Amino acid sequence: MTVERSDINFHESPLRTSALANHLAQYAITLGSQSPRRKELFTGLNVPFTVAVREVDELFPAGMNALDVPEYLAVLKTVPFKPDFKPDGLLVTADTIVLIEGQILGKPLDYDHAFEMLQRLSGKKHVVITGVCITSCSKQTTFSDHTDVYFKSLTDEEIDYYLTHYQPYDKAGSYGVQEWIGYVAIEKIEGSYFNVMGLPIQRLYEELLMF
Amino acid sequence: MTVERSDINFHESPLRTSALANHLAQYAITLGSQSPRRKELFTGLNVPFTVAVREVDELFPAGMNALDVPEYLAVLKTVPFKPDFKPDGLLVTADTIVLIEGQILGKPLDYDHAFEMLQRLSGKKHVVITGVCITSCSKQTTFSDHTDVYFKSLTDEEIDYYLTHYQPYDKAGSYGVQEWIGYVAIEKIEGSYFNVMGLPIQRLYEELLMF
Repeated sequence: MTVERSDINFHESPLRTSALANHLAQYAITLGSQSPRRKELFTGLNVPFTVAVREVDELFPAGMNALDVPEYLAVLKTVPFKPDFKPDGLLVTADTIVLIEGQILGKPLDYDHAFEMLQRLSGKKHVVITGVCITSCSKQTTFSDHTDVYFKSLTDEEIDYYLTHYQPYDKAGSYGVQEWIGYVAIEKIEGSYFNVMGLPIQRLYEELLMF
Repeated sequence: MTVERSDINFHESPLRTSALANHLAQYAITLGSQSPRRKELFTGLNVPFTVAVREVDELFPAGMNALDVPEYLAVLKTVPFKPDFKPDGLLVTADTIVLIEGQILGKPLDYDHAFEMLQRLSGKKHVVITGVCITSCSKQTTFSDHTDVYFKSLTDEEIDYYLTHYQPYDKAGSYGVQEWIGYVAIEKIEGSYFNVMGLPIQRLYEELLMF
């Protein structure tokens, strides 16, 4: 649809559905993720969807290139949905990793482990990579996006303050970018901010428009 | 205060106030801004503060270098607070501009003006600069931070969809980074995301610690 400028009035322009919602109208969309941040981001696309959580062991082959892991796990997360996949279904799954000096930081085991991770991130650049998989009955597409994140040097007191107040034990790399630590520690990023939150939403929008 | 690792227990670590809250304990802090985004960001610092709005005409000298405008306006915004400034007062003011090809984009006058601004931002890099002023009875410090923002090429339909649904007529450059347009249009940023929202919160944290 082309919008003619002369047809548009400041006060009376009707509320259209978005091009993306029109493009995906044939699908019942499912976001297969238990992350509240991903749900929040997907909501921002203004297309109807539901959330469904199906567990999978997040294992990848030893020796796999770390850069390939997020897409691999995003695809793996589609497996438990396959037995009853609906003909009009469209499933979006994703996985996010934190990578520093070539090594993947997972979720911390406890306070000490989280403390060590944040000490390691302190004063350095790390990379956040999110892999995404879009699946329908007839096709599947995957992609990933990466963002460089630069942390200031953190004091032990700052790390302790964050861990005791926010307990980020469910988060890869032991931090949430939208929490206090994201406010005080991140000097700059290069790439998508939303990718660090867990979903490269601009790229996902483009990929869904082409799907 | 140095935190001894051996003193910290996963379960029983007491909730300390932050180093910043301790440092600023002598002050009654005021955020002099009507922006709900700035209030949200400042809240994330976990220091007590109140919001006060005092109007000022946001005018700057003709011929002023655009890069200097945000700090100039942040200082100007302190003026209406001066007549009854308290001895223990600490005031934070800020101003954010959108700059493209050396020209400042202000708040749009109407739909057509906003449409033109977003067409101008489409497919290009622009710069968001926020100037901040920290004021007490005895001293004043100012700084600014800039973030490069890269927009994808927007269709007329996308611009119309955004303007009719979100009506960003109170926003410099006619967009809010945390709204739908920020999700679908921003390919990447270089710098602080929160600076684009209106407050370079990491830099502000450091400056307040040194104040």
